[in-house]
Amino acid sequence: MAGEDSNKGKKKEVKKETGLGLSSKKDENFGEWYSEAFFDAEIKKKKIKNSYFPLFVSPGVLQKEKDHIEGFAPEVAWVTKTGESDLEVPIAIRPTSETVMYPYFSKWIRGHRDLPLRLNQWCNVVRWEFSNPTPFIRSREFLWQEGHTAFATKEEADAEVLEILELYRHIYEEFLAVPVSKGKKSELEKFAGGLYTTTVEAFIPNTGRGIQGATSHCLGQNFAKMFEINFENEKGEKAMVWQNCWGFTTRTIGVMIMVHGDDKGLVLPPKVAATQVILIPVTYKDANTQGIFDACAATVKNLKESGIRAEADYRDNYSPGWKYSHWEMKGVPLRIEIGPKDLANNQVRAVRRDNGAKTDIPVANLVEEVNNVLASIQQNLFDVAKQKRDACVQVVKTWDEFAEAISQKKLILAPWCDEEDVEKDVKARTKGEMGAAKTLCSPFDQPELPEGTLCFASGKPAKKWTYWGRSY
Amino acid sequence: MAGEDSNKGKKKEVKKETGLGLSSKKDENFGEWYSEAFFDAEIKKKKIKNSYFPLFVSPGVLQKEKDHIEGFAPEVAWVTKTGESDLEVPIAIRPTSETVMYPYFSKWIRGHRDLPLRLNQWCNVVRWEFSNPTPFIRSREFLWQEGHTAFATKEEADAEVLEILELYRHIYEEFLAVPVSKGKKSELEKFAGGLYTTTVEAFIPNTGRGIQGATSHCLGQNFAKMFEINFENEKGEKAMVWQNCWGFTTRTIGVMIMVHGDDKGLVLPPKVAATQVILIPVTYKDANTQGIFDACAATVKNLKESGIRAEADYRDNYSPGWKYSHWEMKGVPLRIEIGPKDLANNQVRAVRRDNGAKTDIPVANLVEEVNNVLASIQQNLFDVAKQKRDACVQVVKTWDEFAEAISQKKLILAPWCDEEDVEKDVKARTKGEMGAAKTLCSPFDQPELPEGTLCFASGKPAKKWTYWGRSY
Repeated sequence: MAGEDSNKGKKKEVKKETGLGLSSKKDENFGEWYSEAFFDAEIKKKKIKNSYFPLFVSPGVLQKEKDHIEGFAPEVAWVTKTGESDLEVPIAIRPTSETVMYPYFSKWIRGHRDLPLRLNQWCNVVRWEFSNPTPFIRSREFLWQEGHTAFATKEEADAEVLEILELYRHIYEEFLAVPVSKGKKSELEKFAGGLYTTTVEAFIPNTGRGIQGATSHCLGQNFAKMFEINFENEKGEKAMVWQNCWGFTTRTIGVMIMVHGDDKGLVLPPKVAATQVILIPVTYKDANTQGIFDACAATVKNLKESGIRAEADYRDNYSPGWKYSHWEMKGVPLRIEIGPKDLANNQVRAVRRDNGAKTDIPVANLVEEVNNVLASIQQNLFDVAKQKRDACVQVVKTWDEFAEAISQKKLILAPWCDEEDVEKDVKARTKGEMGAAKTLCSPFDQPELPEGTLCFASGKPAKKWTYWGRSY
Repeated sequence: MAGEDSNKGKKKEVKKETGLGLSSKKDENFGEWYSEAFFDAEIKKKKIKNSYFPLFVSPGVLQKEKDHIEGFAPEVAWVTKTGESDLEVPIAIRPTSETVMYPYFSKWIRGHRDLPLRLNQWCNVVRWEFSNPTPFIRSREFLWQEGHTAFATKEEADAEVLEILELYRHIYEEFLAVPVSKGKKSELEKFAGGLYTTTVEAFIPNTGRGIQGATSHCLGQNFAKMFEINFENEKGEKAMVWQNCWGFTTRTIGVMIMVHGDDKGLVLPPKVAATQVILIPVTYKDANTQGIFDACAATVKNLKESGIRAEADYRDNYSPGWKYSHWEMKGVPLRIEIGPKDLANNQVRAVRRDNGAKTDIPVANLVEEVNNVLASIQQNLFDVAKQKRDACVQVVKTWDEFAEAISQKKLILAPWCDEEDVEKDVKARTKGEMGAAKTLCSPFDQPELPEGTLCFASGKPAKKWTYWGRSY
């Protein structure tokens, strides 16, 4: 699985974690990875079973598929010593689990009734990056799910690739409020050893970079050949399986942070926020402190009973203003303040994290109104992100337009001849400080390509519209 | 966290995985770890938050607490090389996460309003065992949850230790149908650096060995001192936190397998079986194959809609008899056969995995009856396991009785003076082929200890009843 692409050694100009008010990527806010729950339930409906395979891989197995290991070799971490003793044979920490799992596929699959075999695992993998790690985007250890499946026919494999890709789109757009483009990777950018790679691509307007959100690969029969994953088909003949693999990682969190974050810190979409609503008692001297605290507690209870993830910040060593900033920095979608006036009027004051809008909500309508506001925040985050992303899209038809658009950090849509050498050439011509431009994907949703349209880079007849840009 | 004790280099006579019909510990049957779902929901009710900390630890931090690292040093796996390059400073793979997490506790905790801080993580840890790894019981990588909490007062910490221990008991007895004894570890057996350790101890009658099921430790203030985890209390004074840590591991699966497994393979309690009911169409020549397949499909649908984890084995290259053995080996609690006679009589035949009992269930009562049978299997597994375990308990009062009981693989309950040197002496005197005997725990549920009762080993006045035995 190439859940994260292998594009190294470039200068990056991303927001630093400090700029986002995160003291550390180990922040407990992301301990609950809400998209995990959604995805896990969905793949279970598809009868994909969860499994767990070991962290360690022996060098013999790891190096079995030469193209595959070539892609990962520079990043593999090796355990050579335990306690005070050197190991006779060093072992690798999995950078991905094809080589760990497929020897078992070969054992477990005998006849067509054993197919499809569809396994998934939630685990950590390690890829030792040379360039500066970026929290959540490119880190030496990351968490992901990796699905590995085997089918009797290419048709079934093809269908699954798209079904899974649709789940990834759903996670990005419906949960993380991040617009993505579904498409196919170029031959140069596809998973090494695979047949073809599909992707959901996001874009970060601030930095003008594309980012691979998640990938769903059809491996074809290449790994089946290497690992001898054969079966007896319905006619009693020996056949080779068709395989897919697909994954999404904690990079989703990084993309979400970069797309929505602002100068005050994180902005979390309600569907994935561990805390959706934070209650702040606003107690000045002379205020009925106990009454306000009780109102906060009652509000939290009411919201929680309705399934809203709410909590209150009763700390007495911080002022309300300090708490506002604190919870804004943590990205909580909705703040509810309860002060003396609110208590008197039997209302609460709600302040949105996304646009700062304030409304007074009568206690009688609390749950309904809060649910409405949260839904509105979720939608607004997506709409704003989509507007910003769409505003970056630049259609180009010539090399000059392309070069200009790249310098303006655009997400470029260009007619392309779909030739590998031409992509290599574009990369070479755009190499520099900021990193080379490359294909992001050819969107499934293709604009019309009039007869006679030429490739922006080679001048040959264009075969498709393709997104280009710098990327993470 | 010392979720698994550190008792090395002993000969073990456990069932081998092959004896259980497991082709590999990587079997996908355990991909769903049902006790995880229960435990995770319960700790969330207690406002314990999930988090994730890195796999790697720098040597500097790892070695900060000398007693702690001494216990783990021989088992630590070191990454010294990535790709083709040697690392300047090798890094360790976490054997447990105190040293990874507590530096952050020190940063995050300032005032009493920051307490309690209660975090949990589900992750993998690595402890490089020298003795032969035993699947699920002692493996070089294992999965666990580790909870790490900090409180303002010892009283709160003490209370949590027991609350968590009760959850562990619940997992073993209510989910895994394995009887355990709650108790306290001796000074010799407690977590190094901690204040005291509580445990749920299971026993494997076949091998006559105790096994630590899960542990809940009060760390006292020792780690707080080392890592400077201080806070300003309500009076404005500087104080040190009280800490706990607690964990249960995939060892639970090994204990369950050893307690319930039989010569046919696994026997899984219904509450934790990924597949609770397996449907086998019994189609001989002349049978109405389609009718039987349809009945199987309808039955699976019916059961699944009622929340029962059912599936059917339609493979046509295996006989019904082969499938019976296959699913028995996998431990599926209930088999349902549908053959021509069942079809004619509008019934199904149900066969229990635990005791082989067969009943015919009218289709009209299917869900209710299946639920009843599954509940009965769950209860019966626990009852049988408890009877077997209780039959192994031997009360001894003298050294001779003790030595005899050890040779008979008993779970020994003996009056003890509770002195560390005496336990060391007992270990030394029982050392041999089979491993030394040691304390398992002093059960919270203490029988009466009459005035004047003497320690079985030292002849000094006994202070408590304690379980002794060989252990994993």
